[in-house]
Amino acid sequence: MFKHDKQLLREVRVERPNPTYAAMLQEQLGGPQGELKAAMQYLSQSFRIKNPKIKDIFLDIAAEELSHMEMVAQTINLLNGHEPNAVNAAVGNIEAHVLSGLNPMLTNASGELWTAAYVNVTGDLVADLLSNIAAEQRAKVVYEYLHRQIDDKYVRETIDFLLNREEAHSVLFRECFKEIEDIGSNRDWGIDQDNRLYFNLSTPGNFVGNSIPNQQPPSFNPPQSH
Amino acid sequence: MFKHDKQLLREVRVERPNPTYAAMLQEQLGGPQGELKAAMQYLSQSFRIKNPKIKDIFLDIAAEELSHMEMVAQTINLLNGHEPNAVNAAVGNIEAHVLSGLNPMLTNASGELWTAAYVNVTGDLVADLLSNIAAEQRAKVVYEYLHRQIDDKYVRETIDFLLNREEAHSVLFRECFKEIEDIGSNRDWGIDQDNRLYFNLSTPGNFVGNSIPNQQPPSFNPPQSH
Amino acid sequence: MFKHDKQLLREVRVERPNPTYAAMLQEQLGGPQGELKAAMQYLSQSFRIKNPKIKDIFLDIAAEELSHMEMVAQTINLLNGHEPNAVNAAVGNIEAHVLSGLNPMLTNASGELWTAAYVNVTGDLVADLLSNIAAEQRAKVVYEYLHRQIDDKYVRETIDFLLNREEAHSVLFRECFKEIEDIGSNRDWGIDQDNRLYFNLSTPGNFVGNSIPNQQPPSFNPPQSH
Amino acid sequence: MFKHDKQLLREVRVERPNPTYAAMLQEQLGGPQGELKAAMQYLSQSFRIKNPKIKDIFLDIAAEELSHMEMVAQTINLLNGHEPNAVNAAVGNIEAHVLSGLNPMLTNASGELWTAAYVNVTGDLVADLLSNIAAEQRAKVVYEYLHRQIDDKYVRETIDFLLNREEAHSVLFRECFKEIEDIGSNRDWGIDQDNRLYFNLSTPGNFVGNSIPNQQPPSFNPPQSH
Amino acid sequence: MFKHDKQLLREVRVERPNPTYAAMLQEQLGGPQGELKAAMQYLSQSFRIKNPKIKDIFLDIAAEELSHMEMVAQTINLLNGHEPNAVNAAVGNIEAHVLSGLNPMLTNASGELWTAAYVNVTGDLVADLLSNIAAEQRAKVVYEYLHRQIDDKYVRETIDFLLNREEAHSVLFRECFKEIEDIGSNRDWGIDQDNRLYFNLSTPGNFVGNSIPNQQPPSFNPPQSH
Amino acid sequence: MFKHDKQLLREVRVERPNPTYAAMLQEQLGGPQGELKAAMQYLSQSFRIKNPKIKDIFLDIAAEELSHMEMVAQTINLLNGHEPNAVNAAVGNIEAHVLSGLNPMLTNASGELWTAAYVNVTGDLVADLLSNIAAEQRAKVVYEYLHRQIDDKYVRETIDFLLNREEAHSVLFRECFKEIEDIGSNRDWGIDQDNRLYFNLSTPGNFVGNSIPNQQPPSFNPPQSH
Repeated sequence: MFKHDKQLLREVRVERPNPTYAAMLQEQLGGPQGELKAAMQYLSQSFRIKNPKIKDIFLDIAAEELSHMEMVAQTINLLNGHEPNAVNAAVGNIEAHVLSGLNPMLTNASGELWTAAYVNVTGDLVADLLSNIAAEQRAKVVYEYLHRQIDDKYVRETIDFLLNREEAHSVLFRECFKEIEDIGSNRDWGIDQDNRLYFNLSTPGNFVGNSIPNQQPPSFNPPQSH
Repeated sequence: MFKHDKQLLREVRVERPNPTYAAMLQEQLGGPQGELKAAMQYLSQSFRIKNPKIKDIFLDIAAEELSHMEMVAQTINLLNGHEPNAVNAAVGNIEAHVLSGLNPMLTNASGELWTAAYVNVTGDLVADLLSNIAAEQRAKVVYEYLHRQIDDKYVRETIDFLLNREEAHSVLFRECFKEIEDIGSNRDWGIDQDNRLYFNLSTPGNFVGNSIPNQQPPSFNPPQSH
Repeated sequence: MFKHDKQLLREVRVERPNPTYAAMLQEQLGGPQGELKAAMQYLSQSFRIKNPKIKDIFLDIAAEELSHMEMVAQTINLLNGHEPNAVNAAVGNIEAHVLSGLNPMLTNASGELWTAAYVNVTGDLVADLLSNIAAEQRAKVVYEYLHRQIDDKYVRETIDFLLNREEAHSVLFRECFKEIEDIGSNRDWGIDQDNRLYFNLSTPGNFVGNSIPNQQPPSFNPPQSH
Repeated sequence: MFKHDKQLLREVRVERPNPTYAAMLQEQLGGPQGELKAAMQYLSQSFRIKNPKIKDIFLDIAAEELSHMEMVAQTINLLNGHEPNAVNAAVGNIEAHVLSGLNPMLTNASGELWTAAYVNVTGDLVADLLSNIAAEQRAKVVYEYLHRQIDDKYVRETIDFLLNREEAHSVLFRECFKEIEDIGSNRDWGIDQDNRLYFNLSTPGNFVGNSIPNQQPPSFNPPQSH
Repeated sequence: MFKHDKQLLREVRVERPNPTYAAMLQEQLGGPQGELKAAMQYLSQSFRIKNPKIKDIFLDIAAEELSHMEMVAQTINLLNGHEPNAVNAAVGNIEAHVLSGLNPMLTNASGELWTAAYVNVTGDLVADLLSNIAAEQRAKVVYEYLHRQIDDKYVRETIDFLLNREEAHSVLFRECFKEIEDIGSNRDWGIDQDNRLYFNLSTPGNFVGNSIPNQQPPSFNPPQSH
Repeated sequence: MFKHDKQLLREVRVERPNPTYAAMLQEQLGGPQGELKAAMQYLSQSFRIKNPKIKDIFLDIAAEELSHMEMVAQTINLLNGHEPNAVNAAVGNIEAHVLSGLNPMLTNASGELWTAAYVNVTGDLVADLLSNIAAEQRAKVVYEYLHRQIDDKYVRETIDFLLNREEAHSVLFRECFKEIEDIGSNRDWGIDQDNRLYFNLSTPGNFVGNSIPNQQPPSFNPPQSH
């Protein structure tokens, strides 16, 4: 069951309205590395998880991503201001001005509608966790791009907060990974000769040799634990 | 901010696994009249609502629809059983068997991925409330179709519950409508002669005459209040 | 059977070419509240309607929406002018300049391709009529946004005409609704206790109480008929 | 302006309901080679055509394709019968049973929603006519596949009629092509040496030699005119 | 099997970075008439071709289109420059700046994601070849639009080269067509009276008469062979 | 530049045609974890990579994935047999029978058209490599599901080969990761207090405590290197 608290997870503000920044920030509301995608991916994956600790972490993070989605949406709201004028949004999609009455939309910065094609669910915890670790890293990268281009002190604070939260989620997903790395799709790693071949299909350049160097399954044992 | 409680809004169960029923029930998880659509529509619309009562109702319902989504997903989970065997799902999409490891998917019954094209947000409360009243009615109709075809006592109980909740939401949205029917897009209703014409463009058949009979804006004053 | 008359339903003109306005007006050609969507929704719904009067009205309106689509397209044509130059379209999609040779496209203002996901058809007249009443209201709102931002006398006249026609359609759909409100999905309204609950899932704020106030089905008996 | 006549272009019937055939026939209602696509492609292209004869032919055919769409939809209606039961549709999409109340849908046979990505419009008559000639041939092929698999005498008669009409349209588009083959994108054909190279990039097999044999633009002067 | 050579099919360069030109050129990387579409269409069609010469030509061209895709992508790369700044891309999609770190994307100029809905495959060689001849003509038209608007000497050279290659492919596809025009969907052309009717459904204007003038199947015997 | 060799990377065969298996195997041709997606993701990412070793590996793997795509397509071809009969494909999409003439399609098992929304490109090598490692794991999982359900000796051999190749690619991507883990989005890991918070938003269940345990960036130093 989901419950909603009208307080934002963290309050947001803007220096002043800026419809161009609003259009750009849409990327993290309705884009492939955005908050809705993250929430839907972790929620969907949680439906079939049995391990109670991991299920708890997935649902904590899913609820947090929904809460991030609210923060991003509220920031877009403030950046959109009160004047529907598409020409003020110098780049990107103009749906806030012609369709939604300045309401945030479930689209990316260029107007592509959000699609469940962004969501990866396999029913295999190893694969799902690797998907989530990668997803958090991509989300962080997009926030870095936005931080660089959105010159508004308060929006940057919000972006900083969200970016750091994605790192925190990544750490948690790697903790989960360590707990289960001997199960599921990681279990039967490297039992066949076909996975030791190297096909040198792009020339010039052959930096690898004819066989694959290292046959352990993916693992996140960090350097300092040596 | 969203919070999650691991207890379902209402517990679900099934008589026995039935992958065909699971595929059919996907319609209300990831289809155009399904629970994700409802949650996303009301949440998106709420982002810019100022009236505190109406904002509260929209967010109550959005949170409930997310909770319904969980109930539908958990029912699909149970219906999918434990045997990935696409041939057991006699009709509809087979993604649970070939892609998601029996996990519920954000698709409709035939496998179309959920898209934000299902979500209507206009920034105008009159239009948004009419959209929501219509959306609830459509959701009810789809549950009726599923109830008729899914012959599992417990799934039918869940469907009954969800169907009745859609009715309750419709009543609430109509209450909101009555509060605001003089504002927004309803205000300037019928001020022009062009809206009194009738174009008789399909023949044979002319049941209307040459002018439109009734120029009041939409309103939900129910019959018994006469 | 459809027949075409080369005369537009109402002639259109523009003060002067303006590729930016052209891009914005695309919203009502190929967007979710646009004319193609309206035509396809009413035509699709009509396929299974038995009531001859209602079928006639649906097809009259579907034919008119196709005729509106032509008017919008011809206006875009004129606004696009004769010079393919993407930079002249300061905002929105640039497909007219790089893909279609200044031809109107079946996309919204930001370039999202039209999709049948916009179309709602349930086979239930109550639900379909509520969908149509809502759709007309949304179309009207979008025309208001465009009217406000497109500063061209003749385009505004066209928008006024189209906006008023959407109102007329809404009146007609409500007339149909009154005729059939006791059938279909409206018939079994409110027969269960579950639809009298109120889940207060968003806090703070509880404006409703614990039960739903009003259990009549949707109805459009306007205030003056009291 | 479009007008509608409630008489079908040609009456349709079926031997008996068959939901599987209904699902299959959806391919030509809402699929990439179907009637809606054809109507939308020719209508869209017509928006900017100046030549009155060619514009007339495009609009005649567009109106006819809309009329075909009605015939296909009505046949699906009859094949769907009166019993929503997804399991009766042994293959393909099941949306008629779970979503649309047996109403035809704007999807292909497997449930993919119709998209304007199917429509090709370039603003260049040579390219558009070649697109249309190809589209008609593809439509014919799909009708052949359906004819082979749908063992219902009356549906086959309808398919035969539609298939023959696609041939007729192809002939008309080739007539148009002959009239304009010296204009537009065909005019500057073969003026450069780069178009005489042959890149032999797939081996083994080199049936062509190092240069392209024939540099005339596309043309439809049929054999008997020699 | 595909092999890659790091040398481009033809080297590309730009006068100077220009993010607006980069956004526009995306149309031919990930748009409906672009290089990825061409490669995927010919590769998909080749899967079932038996005629060894035609299969060879299809795969030569498919490999070349993939190589063109690389050239277009590398040109976009150079035009994107090194500064992620969405505001510098005055029109079109801004995904390079907010999502992909200046990497070329599989979208069109306005940000619509590439979809397999662009690809036509029928399993019938006559229909597939006509599709390809039309596709090459459309690709040529789009390159002409881009050439006109992109004022960069080196990008224009690349566009010229690619445009000429599309012509060369068209010639090859027509050669294939001549070899097989008596088979497949072309074989049963015009055997029925229904394809001799003309429906005059758009008025005013009746330039054709009541019967279709010419019943030969499509053929590419060029004028000079008379 | 891409070159094609008509020899498959590894020959494929089937015990006998089986249209149901063909439909299921489509998942790895045109689905989100399939070969086209893999090829497009690695090729797109390679466009902007500067490190010559890593660029070589990405392009070797991209070329191999295209070659896998051919193997999957040829297997589907053989499984489709020679009889277009949709009813023989007991589950999944039926496009091979009604649209493509038994040709493999760029869709998943249920008929959803391939979309570039499946492809993740960020321009950041750390994020892209994590995406690729996750993608390979997901591809492996899907092949395991298919192996379990497709009871054809030769198809299983092909699946085994492909599954092992995905493992090999994963090893290579992790090798690349070790080379670059101190650059790009991994560089600034953990510099802020906000990423040490834990939001316990799903109850009951609090397995983590109030702070995140481990703040190193992602790393693939495998256990045996201790």
